[in-house]
Amino acid sequence: MGIMSASGTQPYLSAAQDVIARCHALAKCTEEPGYLTRTFLSEAMRAAYAEVRGWMEQAGMEVRLDHAGNLRGWYKGTTPAPRLIIGSHLDSVPRAGMFDGPLGVLLGVELLRLRHGKRFRYPVEVIGFSEEEGVRFGVPFIGSRAVIGELDSDLLARRDSNGISVQESIHQFGLTQAHQRDEAAAGGYLEFHIEQGPVLENLRLPLGVVETIVGQSRLELVFTGHANHAGTTPMHLRRDALAAAAEWTIEVERRAVNTAGLAATVGKLEVRPGAGNIVPGLVTASLDVRHAEDAVRDGCVNFLIKSASNIAAKRGISVTARVLLDQPAVKMNDALTRQLASAVERSGFPVHRMDSGAGHDAMILARRVPAAMLFLRSPGGISHHPDESVLLEDVAAALAVGTAFLEQLEQAHD
Amino acid sequence: MGIMSASGTQPYLSAAQDVIARCHALAKCTEEPGYLTRTFLSEAMRAAYAEVRGWMEQAGMEVRLDHAGNLRGWYKGTTPAPRLIIGSHLDSVPRAGMFDGPLGVLLGVELLRLRHGKRFRYPVEVIGFSEEEGVRFGVPFIGSRAVIGELDSDLLARRDSNGISVQESIHQFGLTQAHQRDEAAAGGYLEFHIEQGPVLENLRLPLGVVETIVGQSRLELVFTGHANHAGTTPMHLRRDALAAAAEWTIEVERRAVNTAGLAATVGKLEVRPGAGNIVPGLVTASLDVRHAEDAVRDGCVNFLIKSASNIAAKRGISVTARVLLDQPAVKMNDALTRQLASAVERSGFPVHRMDSGAGHDAMILARRVPAAMLFLRSPGGISHHPDESVLLEDVAAALAVGTAFLEQLEQAHD
Repeated sequence: MGIMSASGTQPYLSAAQDVIARCHALAKCTEEPGYLTRTFLSEAMRAAYAEVRGWMEQAGMEVRLDHAGNLRGWYKGTTPAPRLIIGSHLDSVPRAGMFDGPLGVLLGVELLRLRHGKRFRYPVEVIGFSEEEGVRFGVPFIGSRAVIGELDSDLLARRDSNGISVQESIHQFGLTQAHQRDEAAAGGYLEFHIEQGPVLENLRLPLGVVETIVGQSRLELVFTGHANHAGTTPMHLRRDALAAAAEWTIEVERRAVNTAGLAATVGKLEVRPGAGNIVPGLVTASLDVRHAEDAVRDGCVNFLIKSASNIAAKRGISVTARVLLDQPAVKMNDALTRQLASAVERSGFPVHRMDSGAGHDAMILARRVPAAMLFLRSPGGISHHPDESVLLEDVAAALAVGTAFLEQLEQAHD
Repeated sequence: MGIMSASGTQPYLSAAQDVIARCHALAKCTEEPGYLTRTFLSEAMRAAYAEVRGWMEQAGMEVRLDHAGNLRGWYKGTTPAPRLIIGSHLDSVPRAGMFDGPLGVLLGVELLRLRHGKRFRYPVEVIGFSEEEGVRFGVPFIGSRAVIGELDSDLLARRDSNGISVQESIHQFGLTQAHQRDEAAAGGYLEFHIEQGPVLENLRLPLGVVETIVGQSRLELVFTGHANHAGTTPMHLRRDALAAAAEWTIEVERRAVNTAGLAATVGKLEVRPGAGNIVPGLVTASLDVRHAEDAVRDGCVNFLIKSASNIAAKRGISVTARVLLDQPAVKMNDALTRQLASAVERSGFPVHRMDSGAGHDAMILARRVPAAMLFLRSPGGISHHPDESVLLEDVAAALAVGTAFLEQLEQAHD
């Protein structure tokens, strides 16, 4: 047990209450009354900026909006050491929960407010990313890509459903490249985020240390058989595309269940012609495969394509598979993740290392900056839904761990 | 071999050509240019009546339109014996083939034309039923129900998509109850129809003698699991409604394959929310089960409901099953079917007894009249499609068999 273990979460409960209250307050900045919907550079986002800016300034930060609408609070250090970035996103999916994103930003702000003006040797920058969910332009991570200098011309030219490009939306919002300034070197990136899954709750754990953001494959498979009258076509003369797709769907599940850490999902299945009295002639199925090791994921995808072919051949039908996405896994930085695990342990919590099944800003930042990520338990595993929640004691636990983490970095600067 | 065996189809090829030419001509009476679409009491049907009426009169029949729009040609007998009805329907599904229905009517007309005015002891009535497909009012067999006196007030009150009732459509067409007259007793009903399936073609047979029109169950099953993020929900914590429905779909197929004469189909499967990256929470599936023996069909339905429950229970999800249709099998009349089989044999063709997997007017007539039914091979098993076809020699075979059948009945009146 480390030096923080005796304190536990008790000293952080009041601060945790404030963080949660701020998440509630921020949820009022929305495009859709009665729900939280806040997309990239909307007027709702402008209102959110005003709120968060105030809290950042209160905590002793200098605040600016960068050229891509990322809200950035700078907490000066006492030396010119590389900064630590603490960040997450301020945008939301439609009809979202209020913790997915903002919780990570407001935990960062709170960790500095708790310093009461006391400086570290290193500067800390808290970033509220302007875009992570990909709602408005159909492409995610616009904010974090901009921070690492990957807001390229392709991305800037993308248009939303009203025909407005990313570039235009930035200008319309009143942002210019003039706001951009040379970035000081970053020594690390820390992100707090709700798990958005049931694993920690199932293990009765408040926190999880992310090791890897899993790689992801998305495919579309089309099974083509022959549509026939369900009454007049005997079983042995059918070429039923749905029966084939069903057999394959069970194979997908079996393969995933038998491979540690593998998630494989058939989430979409469209059956044509789709009448009760017609043998299905055409089925379009989605496949989503995720794993922390790219070789395992690739092996699974290849196996499942082969499996679909075998099932189709056996049934005298055909199948095609098209890869829509092949995104490699992203490992968090070893050294920084050890620091984070050590902070968890010193704060008196069990260290549970886990993978993230969803993408996060940390995945983008990790390309340029040593990154680490801490998950908070998601009650019911619920996210992307108004019922999304966090437990007060888990938020307090995150504050305890965050404080320990910052202290450790300070000691490392000795 | 019987007395007709030597003749074969050769003497009927020219008549068969005429029948097919008339099917082509009749297909021009359509609501939709470029396709054959002819629904109950449409103007296209009025045009079809004019065509068929002419052919019936040419063949020596007295023709009338009854109170439900059935076109009825009366070929007088020489005695007051009960009449033989030969019938099928004149309406079509949207974008239909040209033989489903009309072929049976025009074969009846041709069989009498081939008599060149020569009378049987018994009268023959050829009926072109006004409605069989159920397109306009969502309920099939309006024509044949009217003929057996089952056009009840519920049916008359049914409305089409324009809000016009069956009753009103009859009045608008210019038909009245005054057209109705007492029906003479019917001694039998014979229907020629394309098989609309691949069985005869697969056996390389021109004709099939129908023994039973199978009973039919239709159900809707709803599998309710829990929608979850496909990336953040490990396999062991999922309640995947689609995986359950897929497992059950394979059970449906297995049961049918292992039960002689059973057809069981999942033709519709709707997956919610239906996104590639979300574990399905809700699946609605159709089930269509058909068999010539009601006990076998009931047993299968019960087994598959139980199977769905077991699969759901094992997976921690729920399932409900709702019966939408439970229609008993209808046996054709034994004695008349033996006569028909004998006519097939005497005409030099193998007798293949089979079930009809689809409903036909014979199913309705069988409630009041001894009924028999002859299938003609469907090339490719194709029906309800513009590519629907018949083979010239099969139509000739049907004419040979019909002629033999009529002769046999005449001899029975000796």
